[in-house]
Amino acid sequence: MADNVVKPERPGGFLDFLPPDYLAREKMLGTIQKIFRSFGFDPIETPRIEFLKTLAGETSDTGKNIFHIKSTHDDEPLAIPFDHTVPFARILAANPYNAKKRTGIRLPWRRMVVGPVFRADTPQSGRYRQFYQFDADIAGTSSMLADAEIVAIMFLTMEALGVKKFKIRLNNRKILNGLAILADIHDRGEVKADDITKEMMRILDKIDKIGLEKVLAELQSEPKTPFDPAPALSEDAIVKIRAFLDLKGSNEEKLKLCGNVFQEISVAEEGIDELRQILDYIAGMGIPAEAVDIDFSIARGLDYYTGPVMETILLDAPEFGSVFGGGRYNGLVSRFTGAELPATGSSIGVDRLFAALSHLGAIDRAEQTVTEVMVLRLEKDRDADYLQMAAELRGAGMNAEVCLADDTTFKNQFNFAITRGMKFAIICGGNEFETQTVQVKNLQTRKQEEIPRNEMIHYFKREN
Amino acid sequence: MADNVVKPERPGGFLDFLPPDYLAREKMLGTIQKIFRSFGFDPIETPRIEFLKTLAGETSDTGKNIFHIKSTHDDEPLAIPFDHTVPFARILAANPYNAKKRTGIRLPWRRMVVGPVFRADTPQSGRYRQFYQFDADIAGTSSMLADAEIVAIMFLTMEALGVKKFKIRLNNRKILNGLAILADIHDRGEVKADDITKEMMRILDKIDKIGLEKVLAELQSEPKTPFDPAPALSEDAIVKIRAFLDLKGSNEEKLKLCGNVFQEISVAEEGIDELRQILDYIAGMGIPAEAVDIDFSIARGLDYYTGPVMETILLDAPEFGSVFGGGRYNGLVSRFTGAELPATGSSIGVDRLFAALSHLGAIDRAEQTVTEVMVLRLEKDRDADYLQMAAELRGAGMNAEVCLADDTTFKNQFNFAITRGMKFAIICGGNEFETQTVQVKNLQTRKQEEIPRNEMIHYFKREN
Repeated sequence: MADNVVKPERPGGFLDFLPPDYLAREKMLGTIQKIFRSFGFDPIETPRIEFLKTLAGETSDTGKNIFHIKSTHDDEPLAIPFDHTVPFARILAANPYNAKKRTGIRLPWRRMVVGPVFRADTPQSGRYRQFYQFDADIAGTSSMLADAEIVAIMFLTMEALGVKKFKIRLNNRKILNGLAILADIHDRGEVKADDITKEMMRILDKIDKIGLEKVLAELQSEPKTPFDPAPALSEDAIVKIRAFLDLKGSNEEKLKLCGNVFQEISVAEEGIDELRQILDYIAGMGIPAEAVDIDFSIARGLDYYTGPVMETILLDAPEFGSVFGGGRYNGLVSRFTGAELPATGSSIGVDRLFAALSHLGAIDRAEQTVTEVMVLRLEKDRDADYLQMAAELRGAGMNAEVCLADDTTFKNQFNFAITRGMKFAIICGGNEFETQTVQVKNLQTRKQEEIPRNEMIHYFKREN
Repeated sequence: MADNVVKPERPGGFLDFLPPDYLAREKMLGTIQKIFRSFGFDPIETPRIEFLKTLAGETSDTGKNIFHIKSTHDDEPLAIPFDHTVPFARILAANPYNAKKRTGIRLPWRRMVVGPVFRADTPQSGRYRQFYQFDADIAGTSSMLADAEIVAIMFLTMEALGVKKFKIRLNNRKILNGLAILADIHDRGEVKADDITKEMMRILDKIDKIGLEKVLAELQSEPKTPFDPAPALSEDAIVKIRAFLDLKGSNEEKLKLCGNVFQEISVAEEGIDELRQILDYIAGMGIPAEAVDIDFSIARGLDYYTGPVMETILLDAPEFGSVFGGGRYNGLVSRFTGAELPATGSSIGVDRLFAALSHLGAIDRAEQTVTEVMVLRLEKDRDADYLQMAAELRGAGMNAEVCLADDTTFKNQFNFAITRGMKFAIICGGNEFETQTVQVKNLQTRKQEEIPRNEMIHYFKREN
């Protein structure tokens, strides 16, 4: 075998989670899950492999970021999901509610999901090709109660994770659609106004990255081909957009000023009204007003949003971008059913959030192991006793292991217990067997106590 | 979009888990995890995509059951893991312990992992192409304490899952290697004795499926090509194998009789001694002797086992085969390092076990949702109040949702709460707002109580 040694390496963009990271991440995921479930979001899981047609649908440009599977066993090409939203839409389409049989999914439905998604990018430093997303979506209602709930979850999740300084930015695609009308975007030859509008939103979304002036310049650049959706806005339109993005004041004031800008552009007025409702509802849920910022520059990258959009920024780590984003999308299920279904939802980039919280010092990696107590094996021919001690400790609810080190000297086993991060060691040698006692060593305080053998369990019941 | 509707279907062999299944499966996984962690098995996670060379190594025949990824971004081919053991070996090879820096993995190490693995089979009814495996392995010790711990975990896991009738079958590859010597297996032209022995084990492993006589016949059939490892055993060898497989008695008696068979075949004697040690150790851990059966026909399919092998059979559902199997393998890490590392481990086929327990009626799918309380929205313009009630309930540790149904009649919302499986409904209409009360309806007992609004939380603290 030695001639054929394989390097034990991972492809770029894929992570291992060894115990300290795994346990810290598990804690974070548990905190998030608790918040989501407290709102009644039901967990589901969909496969890691789907038909390519399910994932890519009728669009062509998403297909290139999807990992495709080589399979000679299937008639249809297979691929790996790049998000949880498309499989959610498939689940909804495949399980319509039947009131008589009481089968299928009764809407409205809150569902959560957590698991890895995949992007077929070029491997490069800091870019994940596999990363966990934690999603919460509500399908089957147009009510802004649902969108408000997403905002509330963002707030409560950040709070539960111990993040002190964050801001939830809120906007509405309907207002941006109004902006496209204001900017006089219309069909241009082969290019539809709708596509030019989406391109405008994609460009607006870059303000954080490249700044306002570069965004405005990009909005003015001329199309390079007859099919280029470049907005190519007029000087007049740019003046209006600049004024719109410059609206200042409290959330209420901004919405009022925004109302003045979009008088009689009904789609924008609808969008403004929806944001007002969301602000009212989150107040009802006890979310402090200052946690949320109406920000008219927020567009969110994805094409499929149709209403309110929202994202969460860590104020002390803005370089990580949005760690928890979402919005309303009403068209996604129509890929499968031909009919619209109102839905709103959100997604946490778990690995990005974990990296950001680590950067902020908010992640505790102190736990190296799940084991609490290690039983040292000091006397030959006493293994049955050591095994029994560990079994007793387990029976009392502790995580306990016998030391399996080949070098069974006290020194080595004790050192092993410490470097592996155990909390307690049970030390029982010849003397202790004779006097029917054990030494319990607290490896954090270094305190050691001699306990009668038959009271060992009680000691831990008292300590913990 | 409607012209281009995509069928909302999954590829064959892949499962969706909707809430009732998800929640029942989550409970099962939680039970297993608790047992594993109580023994100090530390959780890790490895990526869902690895280099093909990592997974397939120098062997060629496993490669065909691996899903390969199309990627233009990588120099090396990528693929999807078919088990957790090979990535575990990669992790061990990539993280050697450095005592000075205290980095890397200090051995011996117990690690657990749970997650999906994938087999690129032809889709057919009942055969999963994605399924969860829950693995526990111990690396870095040759001690039979480790193998005994695996047997103990099998027992305690089955017990914790409420399985009444099961049997853990135990054998040792070393005894079967002794059997190969007894059967006079040797190099034959191009075919190595070792490969013929492995083929013998693969055939022996089919006794449960095809019966003893067919197995013995297969062991006698002639090789079809010069490279066929068919054992082609002599009549004399078959007589010996039949006698060996027919050894009867208690575990101790079987081992004694087996010792008579293999006098002076030292590898088999070593194997017998290892099994004796395991039986002693599990007794020390309080595992009842009758839970374990020495069964000399057990070989386990995988090539890489080198010592004790074990598997768990549900006596009331034997058709599901082994639901929890494992064994010692000392050579797997050498793929990456060129050197052997002793290891032993086990794997639960989670989806098979879930199917088997469902078949036995041991899986409770009663939970449809995580929500415990639904707040009905009966009065217009009172949404802020309903939102606040739900928020209060959450604050008190309940999972609570406001009803989002478009049809806000009492009848519809009440029906919604019942069909969605809620435990309680909060009913608060005009009268209740006037008297500052709420009606709490227990949807299981159908008991309804009027409670002062400001005592609602106390009601639930009392009830739950």
